[in-house]
Amino acid sequence: MDWERERRTGVPEAVLCASKSGTQIQAILIAAASAGRRLLFTRLEPAAVEALAPECRALLDYDPISRTAWCGGPPPAGTVRDGVGIVAAGTSDLPVASEAARTLEFLGFSAPVIADVGVAGLWRLMRRLEEIRGFRVVIAVAGMEGALFSVLAGLVDAPVIAVPASVGYGVSAGGTAALHSALASCAPGLLTVNIDNGFGAAAAAVKMMGKIKD
Amino acid sequence: MDWERERRTGVPEAVLCASKSGTQIQAILIAAASAGRRLLFTRLEPAAVEALAPECRALLDYDPISRTAWCGGPPPAGTVRDGVGIVAAGTSDLPVASEAARTLEFLGFSAPVIADVGVAGLWRLMRRLEEIRGFRVVIAVAGMEGALFSVLAGLVDAPVIAVPASVGYGVSAGGTAALHSALASCAPGLLTVNIDNGFGAAAAAVKMMGKIKD
Amino acid sequence: MDWERERRTGVPEAVLCASKSGTQIQAILIAAASAGRRLLFTRLEPAAVEALAPECRALLDYDPISRTAWCGGPPPAGTVRDGVGIVAAGTSDLPVASEAARTLEFLGFSAPVIADVGVAGLWRLMRRLEEIRGFRVVIAVAGMEGALFSVLAGLVDAPVIAVPASVGYGVSAGGTAALHSALASCAPGLLTVNIDNGFGAAAAAVKMMGKIKD
Amino acid sequence: MDWERERRTGVPEAVLCASKSGTQIQAILIAAASAGRRLLFTRLEPAAVEALAPECRALLDYDPISRTAWCGGPPPAGTVRDGVGIVAAGTSDLPVASEAARTLEFLGFSAPVIADVGVAGLWRLMRRLEEIRGFRVVIAVAGMEGALFSVLAGLVDAPVIAVPASVGYGVSAGGTAALHSALASCAPGLLTVNIDNGFGAAAAAVKMMGKIKD
Amino acid sequence: MDWERERRTGVPEAVLCASKSGTQIQAILIAAASAGRRLLFTRLEPAAVEALAPECRALLDYDPISRTAWCGGPPPAGTVRDGVGIVAAGTSDLPVASEAARTLEFLGFSAPVIADVGVAGLWRLMRRLEEIRGFRVVIAVAGMEGALFSVLAGLVDAPVIAVPASVGYGVSAGGTAALHSALASCAPGLLTVNIDNGFGAAAAAVKMMGKIKD
Amino acid sequence: MDWERERRTGVPEAVLCASKSGTQIQAILIAAASAGRRLLFTRLEPAAVEALAPECRALLDYDPISRTAWCGGPPPAGTVRDGVGIVAAGTSDLPVASEAARTLEFLGFSAPVIADVGVAGLWRLMRRLEEIRGFRVVIAVAGMEGALFSVLAGLVDAPVIAVPASVGYGVSAGGTAALHSALASCAPGLLTVNIDNGFGAAAAAVKMMGKIKD
Amino acid sequence: MDWERERRTGVPEAVLCASKSGTQIQAILIAAASAGRRLLFTRLEPAAVEALAPECRALLDYDPISRTAWCGGPPPAGTVRDGVGIVAAGTSDLPVASEAARTLEFLGFSAPVIADVGVAGLWRLMRRLEEIRGFRVVIAVAGMEGALFSVLAGLVDAPVIAVPASVGYGVSAGGTAALHSALASCAPGLLTVNIDNGFGAAAAAVKMMGKIKD
Amino acid sequence: MDWERERRTGVPEAVLCASKSGTQIQAILIAAASAGRRLLFTRLEPAAVEALAPECRALLDYDPISRTAWCGGPPPAGTVRDGVGIVAAGTSDLPVASEAARTLEFLGFSAPVIADVGVAGLWRLMRRLEEIRGFRVVIAVAGMEGALFSVLAGLVDAPVIAVPASVGYGVSAGGTAALHSALASCAPGLLTVNIDNGFGAAAAAVKMMGKIKD
Repeated sequence: MDWERERRTGVPEAVLCASKSGTQIQAILIAAASAGRRLLFTRLEPAAVEALAPECRALLDYDPISRTAWCGGPPPAGTVRDGVGIVAAGTSDLPVASEAARTLEFLGFSAPVIADVGVAGLWRLMRRLEEIRGFRVVIAVAGMEGALFSVLAGLVDAPVIAVPASVGYGVSAGGTAALHSALASCAPGLLTVNIDNGFGAAAAAVKMMGKIKD
Repeated sequence: MDWERERRTGVPEAVLCASKSGTQIQAILIAAASAGRRLLFTRLEPAAVEALAPECRALLDYDPISRTAWCGGPPPAGTVRDGVGIVAAGTSDLPVASEAARTLEFLGFSAPVIADVGVAGLWRLMRRLEEIRGFRVVIAVAGMEGALFSVLAGLVDAPVIAVPASVGYGVSAGGTAALHSALASCAPGLLTVNIDNGFGAAAAAVKMMGKIKD
Repeated sequence: MDWERERRTGVPEAVLCASKSGTQIQAILIAAASAGRRLLFTRLEPAAVEALAPECRALLDYDPISRTAWCGGPPPAGTVRDGVGIVAAGTSDLPVASEAARTLEFLGFSAPVIADVGVAGLWRLMRRLEEIRGFRVVIAVAGMEGALFSVLAGLVDAPVIAVPASVGYGVSAGGTAALHSALASCAPGLLTVNIDNGFGAAAAAVKMMGKIKD
Repeated sequence: MDWERERRTGVPEAVLCASKSGTQIQAILIAAASAGRRLLFTRLEPAAVEALAPECRALLDYDPISRTAWCGGPPPAGTVRDGVGIVAAGTSDLPVASEAARTLEFLGFSAPVIADVGVAGLWRLMRRLEEIRGFRVVIAVAGMEGALFSVLAGLVDAPVIAVPASVGYGVSAGGTAALHSALASCAPGLLTVNIDNGFGAAAAAVKMMGKIKD
Repeated sequence: MDWERERRTGVPEAVLCASKSGTQIQAILIAAASAGRRLLFTRLEPAAVEALAPECRALLDYDPISRTAWCGGPPPAGTVRDGVGIVAAGTSDLPVASEAARTLEFLGFSAPVIADVGVAGLWRLMRRLEEIRGFRVVIAVAGMEGALFSVLAGLVDAPVIAVPASVGYGVSAGGTAALHSALASCAPGLLTVNIDNGFGAAAAAVKMMGKIKD
Repeated sequence: MDWERERRTGVPEAVLCASKSGTQIQAILIAAASAGRRLLFTRLEPAAVEALAPECRALLDYDPISRTAWCGGPPPAGTVRDGVGIVAAGTSDLPVASEAARTLEFLGFSAPVIADVGVAGLWRLMRRLEEIRGFRVVIAVAGMEGALFSVLAGLVDAPVIAVPASVGYGVSAGGTAALHSALASCAPGLLTVNIDNGFGAAAAAVKMMGKIKD
Repeated sequence: MDWERERRTGVPEAVLCASKSGTQIQAILIAAASAGRRLLFTRLEPAAVEALAPECRALLDYDPISRTAWCGGPPPAGTVRDGVGIVAAGTSDLPVASEAARTLEFLGFSAPVIADVGVAGLWRLMRRLEEIRGFRVVIAVAGMEGALFSVLAGLVDAPVIAVPASVGYGVSAGGTAALHSALASCAPGLLTVNIDNGFGAAAAAVKMMGKIKD
Repeated sequence: MDWERERRTGVPEAVLCASKSGTQIQAILIAAASAGRRLLFTRLEPAAVEALAPECRALLDYDPISRTAWCGGPPPAGTVRDGVGIVAAGTSDLPVASEAARTLEFLGFSAPVIADVGVAGLWRLMRRLEEIRGFRVVIAVAGMEGALFSVLAGLVDAPVIAVPASVGYGVSAGGTAALHSALASCAPGLLTVNIDNGFGAAAAAVKMMGKIKD
């Protein structure tokens, strides 16, 4: 692992498990635990957790919805900050929204998730608007056509980070339609990360919060 | 020309001038005028109008914004219906919205255009909502990310026909991002036509109105 | 659930099950049943139905071909309307056509399905043409090259809603070739929804029929 | 020039002028004329013809609609065969259809062009069907959604060669939608060449006719 | 089934099994057998054959490499013609080549398959060239970059039908690279069908042979 | 113009001139000047400026490299902040980098541009690293393969906003290769805007700086 | 097998197992063993090895990480050369890097693999730079955005062969983003092979080394 | 300019003029001339040369076919090496082939161009094969379907660098079909650069030759 990364970039390295073998994941986990270091794992499928040796599994705090895990325990008590909020268009977007929330939790931020506020029923978003306007950084998660991104960015003065979700079928299968909606938004200042990249959105929010003094 | 088409499909044939030569356009115009028939021309560039013989040009009612023209005069007095409305996200969408409005006018419908109600400033759309709710068929024109389509379809009970406009740059150049937003919309029942196809949206609205008795 | 949607848009919210977990689907079903509400579920795979608790499964009217289900019983007796027809190119298009038919049934419309009238054997379509011309709204389902859409739209005066089906291989795998045929049709006034979106076509037909008095 | 090609492949080499400089085209023309050989030039724009030296221009039989030219005179009298027919969906397809017709003429075949029989007005195609059924090889040219290819291939027993034309806008701009319709056709045995490749379709027809004795 | 098709188009309808359910396939088979008709099934996976009722399975002549089957027996003795040859670049192309060969066999043609003559070892193709030059119609099957199509079409005077195969990875996964090589070929007169469409190539060859008297 | 936008979103509306006519631009400019308001124009080509009436032209502060203009004068003296820096890979990226710099200037920020630090000569970037590390928000502009984004995001702890530039040819023509490099970056927390969207990157930086107290 | 290939091209034919059946693979292996020849197999999945007859399996030297095998033993002792090095961005790239290393080993080259030097932590690459500068040919393997290719090519004077890996998700799924980064690189002289084509990179390196005398 | 690049990478920086303004190009030229340095300019259009100040133009050795120029004179007499050869499929590929040849000349290599050896007339390539087999590095240029790359790589033992050319129309417009043919080649060890990148192929060849002692 690249233990110098946090000092240089403000965000520690995490382990993207999707294309790693069980043997590789286990070796990384043991190395981190031996070094007494905290480490985040993303895209860790339940089956991959099951395949770990029991003593390795016991080292992990695992959440199956977000498919994230960490070793080394929670952030030190008394250091957790707020200021970041997560907005999700629908129930299907919760795995991606949870990846962002869990990453933020690991990195010392408590971030509420406001779900089911997609624009097909605009009144639902409007009811939660004051709460959303209270955040300093907003992470928005939406699949299908991703219209939520533009609507939201036109309603708040905080920076909005769009996370397109691979939710949908036909032309929205894979998340490209939502990604292009974020990039082509008519609302100035909308920012984007890769499809399904809840981790990256959280890392960007942490970098922003690192420049904001409470 | 295929003069039987109106009887069979409810909409007469129109002349798409984009890939026709000046000689071809002029021949079609003369044939229609000789037969005493009304005929609509779309995608007729100002330069192509200039290139027509003056006596041909005099036969045409030409509008440079929508790039449409017709010969044979307006619909008969007293036959014009209303019930169709056109909503456009921004100033740049007006050429496409005008193509729809002019086609409707040629086919006997008076359709108002409500412009500059894009979702980056949602309050502008909200101010015009009651007016929009009064239409029986709504044509919506938007480029860039096309978020207007889903927001609008979630607010009215009339059928909404989305016309993606080739307005934008980067990933929205050519109009595909707006098209995919229309197709992948989270608002059920949204309908779509090809990019920039204001004529097609108007033709569909006329087909729907043909089934609605006043 | 967004129970206000029907009042505002003319079509109630439905549950797209494709990217929801079994736990999420079951919770929504129980909430609807507890509230005494009718609710439609789409893209509900047989395996997902099997995974429900038996008392939940018993609440559902499930159809495996269309992969749709509803709770809360059929529409009130005496309220079912007709006027919508569904035309399918081939046997492989029946799952999508059935999704449209079942959605229409849930929403109070009885819609016949006319199948196996693809244009490779044009005489088959011609034999059914008078019946098709009797509909006020036509939903057309076709995969592969989707030539049926243009042929049909050139033969009837009712609005035609094309539903491209993800039937085919090579360049038509995924349904994009059929979608582009619908969008680029030479027959004016053809309308399109997303690939495989039988539900959306039915919702649009219901919106149109809501403006047509019998 | 590759003068051996005709003997080996049944079709002589032609000069695709699109990406050649005026200097290169003129040198090839002079070489062919000096050798007393017949030679076909395709995609030769009127401006490129104008730029040739007058004595070179005089060597050419040029047709501006198809943008083809040849030197060396027509095929020998008494050798011209028929059996090949060309069907074009609309007026905009005539440049491509003419490229096929002119290539056939250069190669010794007289091929009629039947135009304006697109499927939006199916009755027009039906009126010409007996004539089309008389051809041994049919070349079909269509842009936009290319539905003509499948309809035609389902009505005749001769091999049909589809030539997708780059006619259309939005999703059909560039001709890909028509190409995919040809490739994904539900009518078995339809054959395809590249977009706008009237020359290639004619060459294929000549290869087929080379195997058919009168 | 569309039993009129053969009379009108020269090729009978076949059953594409890929997107049909077992119930649908079995019903079609029983209908054909009851009517005493010969019928071809393509893309019929071994597992689907296993799932048929034993008495249905017994009606079929099934070949697992080509995944084709037919009922109703072989073509009448004494009617089998030759003149069509199949050339395949490599071992991986044999399933597609076999689909063409089996379709030809069902339709009354005996077509040899010449395999492993890809252009990475050009000397292998050269050794078989005289044999290939004897065919009246050549079907060529290749995946990856599809260079075989152009090389072959430059060496024979018979029409060549390219069948791009979905063999390869990276940019050639799915067969599009080979398809584009066929369409963009520098060898005039090359014809193409959809990716993996051995059936379609055979149908086209039969249509050509129908115009050639022995 | 939507004068409420700044109050709600922290960034005022700007005029994207690319798809507007000269008449439309002039009308907007006169309206803003009459109202005594400051207004930013982007993608305003030199030819469009030339086409304005002289008295309109005189109202504008125009910069031809960034193709931006504003009316209403500079920000109030004494209010200009720093903290944002712009890094550009090469000379060809300067128009996009300048659009960001000019937008920031209009919005009250002084942002230096550090150019010609592309990764083909990594030592050039290293020499400027301490200066770059001093910014609170970094805007990075790169075309071609966009490798600068990942390298930079791995070296600084400030949030980095990638602006892919449409600089390059072949697979990088149009800027998609650079865009995908930004989205797929192995450096966590990298943020992206649309291709060539210097304005959007500046707007996002201003939103971030709005949450940072000096 | 094409046993002449090595003599003509400098690299022997290998067997790409991905689209071959178990029966085909086993037949090729037996033929090679009978002829006493060495032969390399790539993309041979563990399940396919398991499915071989035990006596066939015993003929193979199989490596599951690279999914390669060979029969006929190692290269003759005393003939192994060095000069080629392999650089991999991350752990997930090791299967592709290993395919290159194993191919080189089979062809008589010993090539070290330097892993985990991706540009998100540039200092890791810098620590290994002197070692990398000692190679005469460098093979670089990277997925996601592929920024390593340009950075590396800007730091060494040996030719660099980029192998894009299908590692990533969203826009980098399938490896196209990394491929485009390699092709569009701002570092002159970077060479590319197909996605995941470790074998091809090794073959190219061997061709280069064949022209370099020790 | 990055004058350190040649020492580190073996190839000096060149100036890609395509997206630079005339002012920028002239400034770079004057800086190089003042420093007494040799410098290569690529993609320099004749119109851009015309726009230079006469005294600047006089500093350049310009070639309009390859659109390259250099200042500072030819390589020192007596240092020019051979060993690199360029093979071009057709006349239309000569601009790209010339860019490679001129770059090689500037960098001290004399490279012959063997043209008009496309595979539609394979006998033409065969006649030049012995000459081609004499090169240590082969650069191959082809557009359309790019079949030349695989055929050539299967016939020589030197490394082959494919340069796909943006020559063709329809599916080969822009050069992607040729690029994919190079990447997906069935001939092992074929290497690729970006479309039209004759400069990059030459730079790679020079890097290879730098490792080969005469």
